[in-house]
Amino acid sequence: MIHVVNGPNLNLLGQRETGIYGRKTLKEIERELEDIAFCNSCEISFFQSNHEGDIIDYLQEADNEDKIILNPGGLGHTSVSLRDCIAAIEADVVEVHISNIHARESFRRRSLLSPVCRGVICGFGTDVYKMALNWLIGR
Amino acid sequence: MIHVVNGPNLNLLGQRETGIYGRKTLKEIERELEDIAFCNSCEISFFQSNHEGDIIDYLQEADNEDKIILNPGGLGHTSVSLRDCIAAIEADVVEVHISNIHARESFRRRSLLSPVCRGVICGFGTDVYKMALNWLIGR
Amino acid sequence: MIHVVNGPNLNLLGQRETGIYGRKTLKEIERELEDIAFCNSCEISFFQSNHEGDIIDYLQEADNEDKIILNPGGLGHTSVSLRDCIAAIEADVVEVHISNIHARESFRRRSLLSPVCRGVICGFGTDVYKMALNWLIGR
Amino acid sequence: MIHVVNGPNLNLLGQRETGIYGRKTLKEIERELEDIAFCNSCEISFFQSNHEGDIIDYLQEADNEDKIILNPGGLGHTSVSLRDCIAAIEADVVEVHISNIHARESFRRRSLLSPVCRGVICGFGTDVYKMALNWLIGR
Amino acid sequence: MIHVVNGPNLNLLGQRETGIYGRKTLKEIERELEDIAFCNSCEISFFQSNHEGDIIDYLQEADNEDKIILNPGGLGHTSVSLRDCIAAIEADVVEVHISNIHARESFRRRSLLSPVCRGVICGFGTDVYKMALNWLIGR
Amino acid sequence: MIHVVNGPNLNLLGQRETGIYGRKTLKEIERELEDIAFCNSCEISFFQSNHEGDIIDYLQEADNEDKIILNPGGLGHTSVSLRDCIAAIEADVVEVHISNIHARESFRRRSLLSPVCRGVICGFGTDVYKMALNWLIGR
Amino acid sequence: MIHVVNGPNLNLLGQRETGIYGRKTLKEIERELEDIAFCNSCEISFFQSNHEGDIIDYLQEADNEDKIILNPGGLGHTSVSLRDCIAAIEADVVEVHISNIHARESFRRRSLLSPVCRGVICGFGTDVYKMALNWLIGR
Amino acid sequence: MIHVVNGPNLNLLGQRETGIYGRKTLKEIERELEDIAFCNSCEISFFQSNHEGDIIDYLQEADNEDKIILNPGGLGHTSVSLRDCIAAIEADVVEVHISNIHARESFRRRSLLSPVCRGVICGFGTDVYKMALNWLIGR
Amino acid sequence: MIHVVNGPNLNLLGQRETGIYGRKTLKEIERELEDIAFCNSCEISFFQSNHEGDIIDYLQEADNEDKIILNPGGLGHTSVSLRDCIAAIEADVVEVHISNIHARESFRRRSLLSPVCRGVICGFGTDVYKMALNWLIGR
Amino acid sequence: MIHVVNGPNLNLLGQRETGIYGRKTLKEIERELEDIAFCNSCEISFFQSNHEGDIIDYLQEADNEDKIILNPGGLGHTSVSLRDCIAAIEADVVEVHISNIHARESFRRRSLLSPVCRGVICGFGTDVYKMALNWLIGR
Amino acid sequence: MIHVVNGPNLNLLGQRETGIYGRKTLKEIERELEDIAFCNSCEISFFQSNHEGDIIDYLQEADNEDKIILNPGGLGHTSVSLRDCIAAIEADVVEVHISNIHARESFRRRSLLSPVCRGVICGFGTDVYKMALNWLIGR
Amino acid sequence: MIHVVNGPNLNLLGQRETGIYGRKTLKEIERELEDIAFCNSCEISFFQSNHEGDIIDYLQEADNEDKIILNPGGLGHTSVSLRDCIAAIEADVVEVHISNIHARESFRRRSLLSPVCRGVICGFGTDVYKMALNWLIGR
Repeated sequence: MIHVVNGPNLNLLGQRETGIYGRKTLKEIERELEDIAFCNSCEISFFQSNHEGDIIDYLQEADNEDKIILNPGGLGHTSVSLRDCIAAIEADVVEVHISNIHARESFRRRSLLSPVCRGVICGFGTDVYKMALNWLIGR
Repeated sequence: MIHVVNGPNLNLLGQRETGIYGRKTLKEIERELEDIAFCNSCEISFFQSNHEGDIIDYLQEADNEDKIILNPGGLGHTSVSLRDCIAAIEADVVEVHISNIHARESFRRRSLLSPVCRGVICGFGTDVYKMALNWLIGR
Repeated sequence: MIHVVNGPNLNLLGQRETGIYGRKTLKEIERELEDIAFCNSCEISFFQSNHEGDIIDYLQEADNEDKIILNPGGLGHTSVSLRDCIAAIEADVVEVHISNIHARESFRRRSLLSPVCRGVICGFGTDVYKMALNWLIGR
Repeated sequence: MIHVVNGPNLNLLGQRETGIYGRKTLKEIERELEDIAFCNSCEISFFQSNHEGDIIDYLQEADNEDKIILNPGGLGHTSVSLRDCIAAIEADVVEVHISNIHARESFRRRSLLSPVCRGVICGFGTDVYKMALNWLIGR
Repeated sequence: MIHVVNGPNLNLLGQRETGIYGRKTLKEIERELEDIAFCNSCEISFFQSNHEGDIIDYLQEADNEDKIILNPGGLGHTSVSLRDCIAAIEADVVEVHISNIHARESFRRRSLLSPVCRGVICGFGTDVYKMALNWLIGR
Repeated sequence: MIHVVNGPNLNLLGQRETGIYGRKTLKEIERELEDIAFCNSCEISFFQSNHEGDIIDYLQEADNEDKIILNPGGLGHTSVSLRDCIAAIEADVVEVHISNIHARESFRRRSLLSPVCRGVICGFGTDVYKMALNWLIGR
Repeated sequence: MIHVVNGPNLNLLGQRETGIYGRKTLKEIERELEDIAFCNSCEISFFQSNHEGDIIDYLQEADNEDKIILNPGGLGHTSVSLRDCIAAIEADVVEVHISNIHARESFRRRSLLSPVCRGVICGFGTDVYKMALNWLIGR
Repeated sequence: MIHVVNGPNLNLLGQRETGIYGRKTLKEIERELEDIAFCNSCEISFFQSNHEGDIIDYLQEADNEDKIILNPGGLGHTSVSLRDCIAAIEADVVEVHISNIHARESFRRRSLLSPVCRGVICGFGTDVYKMALNWLIGR
Repeated sequence: MIHVVNGPNLNLLGQRETGIYGRKTLKEIERELEDIAFCNSCEISFFQSNHEGDIIDYLQEADNEDKIILNPGGLGHTSVSLRDCIAAIEADVVEVHISNIHARESFRRRSLLSPVCRGVICGFGTDVYKMALNWLIGR
Repeated sequence: MIHVVNGPNLNLLGQRETGIYGRKTLKEIERELEDIAFCNSCEISFFQSNHEGDIIDYLQEADNEDKIILNPGGLGHTSVSLRDCIAAIEADVVEVHISNIHARESFRRRSLLSPVCRGVICGFGTDVYKMALNWLIGR
Repeated sequence: MIHVVNGPNLNLLGQRETGIYGRKTLKEIERELEDIAFCNSCEISFFQSNHEGDIIDYLQEADNEDKIILNPGGLGHTSVSLRDCIAAIEADVVEVHISNIHARESFRRRSLLSPVCRGVICGFGTDVYKMALNWLIGR
Repeated sequence: MIHVVNGPNLNLLGQRETGIYGRKTLKEIERELEDIAFCNSCEISFFQSNHEGDIIDYLQEADNEDKIILNPGGLGHTSVSLRDCIAAIEADVVEVHISNIHARESFRRRSLLSPVCRGVICGFGTDVYKMALNWLIGR
């Protein structure tokens, strides 16, 4: 099972700050990913929350075979708990960011999660989800 | 509609550390604000939570006409998610702090939220809520 | 007596960089404050200088009953002498900034004066003077 | 009443990363502590959550006579809100860490909570809970 | 035309430090990319050098329609000249790193180039080249 | 054999700064520990010195079976030599501090020794010695 | 009108520390500049003060057509007020330093003014004034 | 001639913050110094100002034979101009501080002036002036 | 002989990022400088390279009578080798930058070369070359 | 009793590095101080050691009536143990340094001891001992 | 084979800055090393370049049996690429510096290469090459 | 006379942490050095202590003709007193470290002693003593 997990404020995708994040809604992105997963006969599920604790609860349920695409939103820069969670579970986690975080405020350049993730993709707009999904399927 | 949003531990106002925060309870403050709002025929609502995620959920519901008075408590110094939320919604947000945060521990001097708020008021005790409310009404 | 003290370059208000500071001149602001003071039968006086020393001389004359609204301009970020002066006199000092200093260059985020002032108001345009005055009158 | 409060990811104790945290589950630890408490005729209760807000809610319910053993997990390094909560309540709080946090990543060496706790115990494996409990009973 | 540009020491791929970088040689990687490009009827060319100056010379030749996949090796952390070059040319540049640079020495976490690149992919082994190529083709 | 080693100025315990360190003298503490050791038929010896070199000399004599309770006093924050000594000998070392070092001057928050010690206990007054001793006996 | 403005201690030029600043007095420099201005039929005026406030007063009088050559002396490293003044007025300001400030104490390497000046010239001895004047005339 | 120069706010000595600075007024201190100077047949003069520029003007008048006792107040921590002035004049300058600046806020521990002064005396209350005077006379 | 040496990416002058660097090509600038040199019967030669090593090779050939105008481009912020080269050769070197580097990214504010150059000119557009040339001729 | 305590390397006074420390030997200085003490009928004793521990042992013997003149040498910059000792004993301690430590290497500018000493005198050569002695006698 | 590799500006040895680097030319040093190698029947070769890329090209050619003496010049402080190269090749590398880099500018104290070299020798003038050679031969 | 001085914990050489420091004891190393010294008819003496003060006492006895090989152990990173001692005595001091200190914890990369030593050798195992001795004999 591949899990696509989105952190705080990503439910607003396509509705707010479209200059930075583009005009696709999270629903639309999820539908596209579902299609790709379906074509590759692979199961996929989606989760979004503004609550750090809910995301940790969710990730803890993953088993070793699971794979995770995680866009942590602002939590990536501040949450040691989320980092500890990723380090504890055995599933592979791919970190994605829609915008190029290196071209924004300096506090966005440091992600606490990156050192414990498998890899990181950022800056390709909402395509980052597809790139991560394709890589996970292709392994 | 004007929303008065209070973050973690502010439900304890008037009961704990009264030397720093004064003896008025959050209930009493809310009643005073309600009176001012009523006199100015303006709608007001109140929200307090110790959960970052609940506050983000609440703020995302605000529409463009709404105005927000936010005392983030400790979240102001640590929550990039809350900052992203304020930047994403289009309502004006006024940040208030009861105590003079500049005269306390050094980690309290940096607020992640201030750069994306309309203005900041701190140090006038529980009067900061009234000052913010009067300014929002007076515009 | 309430003293409204403005530091360096604030004599240019309304004439330069109106995009940041608005179009009201210092004269106009002072007239508005005078009106509020008059309606509340409270005495008010005004002082502006580009000289750190003149402002310190002026503040030292304040007696215990006096109250001060201070917009220190650039001095707020650099003047230990002004800080020492505020700490030494017994009058209450309210620090105000017209723009949201937290949304500007990083060296503007630290004010040496804030820790010894009663409270701080910033970012509400030239309304910050009125907010401070109303609070001082209302006590 | 003594409260044993565990933060994010500590529900995984004994199941994940057993090289660092040992093979005892949280259930087993709690049973051992219960036995000690029973032998000393002292009441004990347990709480674990991955949600910062839930932990704050829980701690706010403690009254002055209560004592708290807190393993904050990753929250200890990032949560000003939790710190404010501990400072606000009047119960004694003992901070414990299973691993020697000083021998790990540098960001783990700073705990925001330590300055407002009664004392700190770290590095003795899951024995830290017993050491804290014995000390609280022995006072 | 898509250009795949590799910086210092990447000619050693597959021969040295295979624990970190894998066993595929640069030649083998280039052959795979050639196949993908061919299937998509898109032109591709390859360049590797240990000389900062040669890489800058090469990149300056790119025209607006060109697209570049760049693995800067160690230059990414130190070369302002390479950054200036990327900012000056108008072609889109995708930065890739074979290993997860965030899980290595701290000086590797800062890339001078990332802020001026279109996006960044790191940590997926030699697959990073294919992911970048597929994205560029798919636009 | 368990060794209780106290660094500079701890011979003054109970006589100076009793507000911070309590009223028990080092002699009294040692007598209490002796009683506990005796009840558990375990050998114990005591050593205090204001000389870094003497403490290193002493610790080097410990053999693999020995266990050490070390209150390094001010040396914990500055002595790389003491750290090297602890790393070199094979005996387990437990670091203790009477006061909560995290609630004092910032230079006291970093202990050079902690990363090479088995565990750390601080802030429980002179009880820290007993807690360490009980743990060492209980293993 | 071109204004040549010199900050604190520059009235001592040619009399003190001649090893660093050379043997020409400020009077002599001003005479040379006057000659150049005269030959180019351009008006020039001179101002020197040890008072930050006087320099700000003076600069505020400049109108849009004016051009300013400013040697701020020590104020360049400390005065946010002077920076604000330069940013506020619309005249072009050229910053000059007689000595090579980069080859001296580290606190001299940062000038608060440079980011708001048109350009900076330093290290050519008292020729820096002439270079600035010639450039302003030549535009 | 020996000059006793006092910076900003020192005119308030003995009237404000007497807990830190003692109860002697500047007048009384000056009278005591005058007596000592008279007994040693040495000329003495006094100067106090809240204006950085006035102090620089005054110091520049000193000739090589003169000696200066300087209490810079807050200027010591911020004024590069004052430092340049002391370095430029050839008179010996002794820096004094009434309170122990090392036991106060961290920004008070760095004096820009100390490296260019002959010596520094701090913490002995208003006796620091006498100690400096006696040393200058005794040479 | 006067050498005009340009570092990485300056061959693109006038063609890319003309908003920052202006519309004059390097060829045009060189022609202008040639004219000035000719009128003053002074020999001049030009060199540009994107290779740090080539620039060092070139500079090492300069003899004591030579003078150098150097625009190091990005190398100025990173190359200790270039600094060592300038320190080693005996020719005078003038450092120039077309844009005002102090008004750009913070890593551009530090030039490793400035401390070993004769002087620095920046921010006057492509006129900086002429200013440097005129000064070198005028000596 | 007044104790004059000298730390490491001060036994070499007058024999080594006479350019910095002058030509008076420690013996000669002690003789001069003895004379002053004798004239004022006050007891004085001397102690010098290169051993941190010996100095702490010595200082701990001081009783409340004693007064101490301490030149800590290099220990002042590194010894938390010495600081703790001074804080613990009740005797007044005056810190002296022969050279102006602020005009030397940057690590010499921070003294760990100054915050817990009564006052500090530095830079007046070997006269610093006399100045301290006279002040202690004069109280 | 032993390779003696010299970085930027070391071709100037004995000709420039002889006060720091001595009067022996690189040729003379190489002749001396050749003699030592010959006496020990060991092959030796020499390489110097001002080009980072050339040095990396050269080092990559070394095979496992080779040994390298490397004086990186200024590249040691800035080149991550050179560091990666040394880490990648399997030959032992000894880093040498002619001058004592610890007694010079602070940016020279950090060598990026030292952590991946076998050992480091600095400060013994041009003897450092011989010391390294003798050690390599003697193994 | 050549003195070989070893600091804290080096008496444990060959017995503890043999993975880092090798299997030769200090005794064995000293015997080897004695042989080399004897063959070159040069006097040699040995000293080891865990006491900073003893090492300073010992070094102060050296006269101008003496030469010193110093392995300071942990004192090299912390002892300003030892640095002052080396600077004060006139004998040449060579600093040696058995392990490559640059490849270990970051606090080991800074040696306070290096700037005042003649040269530094590190990372060649216990051969560093021989290399230093040979160089001192060979001068």
